[in-house]
Amino acid sequence: MNASNSPDDSNEEEIIQYGLSDEVVQELQDAVEAGDADFLHAKLDDWHSADIADLIEQLKPKLRSTFLDIMADKIEPDVYSDLDENVRDDLVEDMEPAEIAAVITELEVDDAVDVLEDMEEEEQQEVLKELSAEDRAAVEEGLSFEEDSAGRLMQRDLIAVPEYWNIGQTIDFLRDTDDLPNEFYEIFVVDPRHHPIGTIPLNRAMRSKRDVAVRDIMDTEQKLIPVDMDQEEVAYLFQQYSLASAAVVNANGMLIGVITVDDIVDVISEEAEEDLLLLAGVSEDDLFENVLSTARTRFPWLLINLFTATAASVAISMFDATMEAIIALAVLMPIVASLGGNAGTQTLTVAVRALATKELTAANMWRILGKEMIVAALNGSFFAVMIGLIAWGWFGDPIIGLVIAAAMVTNILVAGTAGMLVPVTLDKLNIDPAVASSVFVTTTTDIIGFVAFLGLATIVLL
Amino acid sequence: MNASNSPDDSNEEEIIQYGLSDEVVQELQDAVEAGDADFLHAKLDDWHSADIADLIEQLKPKLRSTFLDIMADKIEPDVYSDLDENVRDDLVEDMEPAEIAAVITELEVDDAVDVLEDMEEEEQQEVLKELSAEDRAAVEEGLSFEEDSAGRLMQRDLIAVPEYWNIGQTIDFLRDTDDLPNEFYEIFVVDPRHHPIGTIPLNRAMRSKRDVAVRDIMDTEQKLIPVDMDQEEVAYLFQQYSLASAAVVNANGMLIGVITVDDIVDVISEEAEEDLLLLAGVSEDDLFENVLSTARTRFPWLLINLFTATAASVAISMFDATMEAIIALAVLMPIVASLGGNAGTQTLTVAVRALATKELTAANMWRILGKEMIVAALNGSFFAVMIGLIAWGWFGDPIIGLVIAAAMVTNILVAGTAGMLVPVTLDKLNIDPAVASSVFVTTTTDIIGFVAFLGLATIVLL
Repeated sequence: MNASNSPDDSNEEEIIQYGLSDEVVQELQDAVEAGDADFLHAKLDDWHSADIADLIEQLKPKLRSTFLDIMADKIEPDVYSDLDENVRDDLVEDMEPAEIAAVITELEVDDAVDVLEDMEEEEQQEVLKELSAEDRAAVEEGLSFEEDSAGRLMQRDLIAVPEYWNIGQTIDFLRDTDDLPNEFYEIFVVDPRHHPIGTIPLNRAMRSKRDVAVRDIMDTEQKLIPVDMDQEEVAYLFQQYSLASAAVVNANGMLIGVITVDDIVDVISEEAEEDLLLLAGVSEDDLFENVLSTARTRFPWLLINLFTATAASVAISMFDATMEAIIALAVLMPIVASLGGNAGTQTLTVAVRALATKELTAANMWRILGKEMIVAALNGSFFAVMIGLIAWGWFGDPIIGLVIAAAMVTNILVAGTAGMLVPVTLDKLNIDPAVASSVFVTTTTDIIGFVAFLGLATIVLL
Repeated sequence: MNASNSPDDSNEEEIIQYGLSDEVVQELQDAVEAGDADFLHAKLDDWHSADIADLIEQLKPKLRSTFLDIMADKIEPDVYSDLDENVRDDLVEDMEPAEIAAVITELEVDDAVDVLEDMEEEEQQEVLKELSAEDRAAVEEGLSFEEDSAGRLMQRDLIAVPEYWNIGQTIDFLRDTDDLPNEFYEIFVVDPRHHPIGTIPLNRAMRSKRDVAVRDIMDTEQKLIPVDMDQEEVAYLFQQYSLASAAVVNANGMLIGVITVDDIVDVISEEAEEDLLLLAGVSEDDLFENVLSTARTRFPWLLINLFTATAASVAISMFDATMEAIIALAVLMPIVASLGGNAGTQTLTVAVRALATKELTAANMWRILGKEMIVAALNGSFFAVMIGLIAWGWFGDPIIGLVIAAAMVTNILVAGTAGMLVPVTLDKLNIDPAVASSVFVTTTTDIIGFVAFLGLATIVLL
């Protein structure tokens, strides 16, 4: 945090221009290529670490280390915690353990753990060796918590005061202590066992007279976060109760850390991104991954899809005689499967999202399934009539129209059912519905679509 | 905010149990059905408004008004702002303008605007008439800002002090003023024209001695938010710079409001949800919408899909003679389209997300397209060999295997290209890539998949 008076208040327009423009990135990339240190130092002097991190991500990979060399000690360590994980891991790989340790020493513990957690065990140990005993203990404790748990998110620096203090003592304590957290929004009140018993928002503390007892103005209805709580659950708490910060407690109920809402902003983003990508069959954000890793993260879903598509083809092949007799069926069959797949994807996406936000529960599941059935019947009927007329007009046979219409209604109803039941069932089985729902639902609508259409045609038309 | 000492500190286990369990919802729903007011009043006495809102959402729709009647004045107005939009609109429809006005009076302006904005013009006017002149002016001003803009998100209540004050004066002002915002994290410093020139985080103010000038400890590097900035952009700012709160300025640069990070948490969630749903062809979260509205929101995408699927069928029909000659082609053709569609969806989802987070830009677009091509070539080659062998083994004809393999490589390369170029192009045209990318990409991979496979087969096999 910068408390000095920056002289650079002149360019108001630039203040409103957030993020990097393509021109600026191009200009800076050219400067890196030309090795123009003076230009880069001058230009990036007052940049926020997050913008510098973005710039590094935008640079051609081979220029990134060059850039870091040019900037050297003008780079704040925070840049490393703001970087995309893949880009950071690439850069850190090229650094000496002592260099990494120098960066980590300057970071908050949660950010330091972020940088270290993806390293190989051996290299991690070498970096840890370079840290001071105190830092090493803090980082090792951080690493001891499970990934994506509250323990990894929390900061250990916090303000806790005993319940018998008053506001004056609290303020004096804050003024006299040098080693305070950078940012905090509330003061925790603890009992002699160091259990949190209340909180005082800073603004309330500021408005209170010095002789007011902290006990008398604290909120006792605080939401405590067990240190092993999953970060998705932590994010839910912050959203649900509009929290600014919350105390983290260990298994004995002792106050051991604090999570603030700005850490949660990133978690919410990450979790929503994860669901978005998983639904599309991508296991993680791979924009900045190298080619091989990207191909690998995309591979499993395509492989599963190869099997499910082949299964659908096997279903089709049972009706090859029917198709040979009436080739129009082969022409029309993808329409039924395609619309079914889309209707199913709509339902399952709403369901996956509603499960994530805890809006879809056992209490309303059957009611919402019922609603989905009616929606499917409405849209299904409309599209059945449409496709029936198209098929009749196209191939001049009303029976083909009737067959495809019947198959369409069936498949859209199946889509609505599968779109609800598959994610709900996976969720009950403690499988992330975002991962596996799509493949189950679209395989179902493909196979049902083909079989309903070709099967009905076999019965009616042959 | 509750500053009293709650006697209910005994059940520590329940504190850790967040969110509503299915059993609790069932129990409470039964109580509503039985009209058991005493039970409900006792049980819900210390519930947070967000949990009561969740309970209302979980209740059968016909029980919701009953519940509100039973709870009557025991319901905090905040419950209304915590409710899902669809559920709230249903409930508000049944209320008298005076009742709605009574609720709105108790809400913060941004929440009041939320409740009012979806009402019909005429009803909105009737409610506004019931408000006090001051509240009406504030709400009308709120409504005058564009939906989803910073003006709708901001709170007008904030602490601004002149630059010539010192910390002592600031603290005395806070202590002596009754009508302060409920929650605030920083103090704004303004010049005589009421332009914001700096901010002081509360924790810094608390640690400073009374005689320190605010000018000397303020941060001047603040991020200002123009009142008409889109909320997605505002969310980006908060995330990028880890802001706790930020000043909102009007066109003249005057400080007119403040946005705090807890409002942003909801925006980030909403925007991510919007992208997720749009990619699946659902225009808004419709879990709590009624049947007709839900069918309507799902309809357009299915209609577009009907046309694109029919277009794909037309493409297939050009090769009906080929399929009649070799029915195996009809059996196999969905596999090529299906894998192409999936590969395309993977790429486009990563691209849509990266555009939203400003990680994919003009500066790195060609590089990342190049990467996608290599990924497609790698995975495409593998799956080409796989499906080639499957087809050969299945139909005993190596030429069919070669044809499907060639079509598969082609289609996965096309999928990678379209998956990148379609969202980037839409974004350049200022069309939300989340809305329209899927349909373009999957139509492309369907048609190319069918045409490449059947066309090649016509050339090679006939």
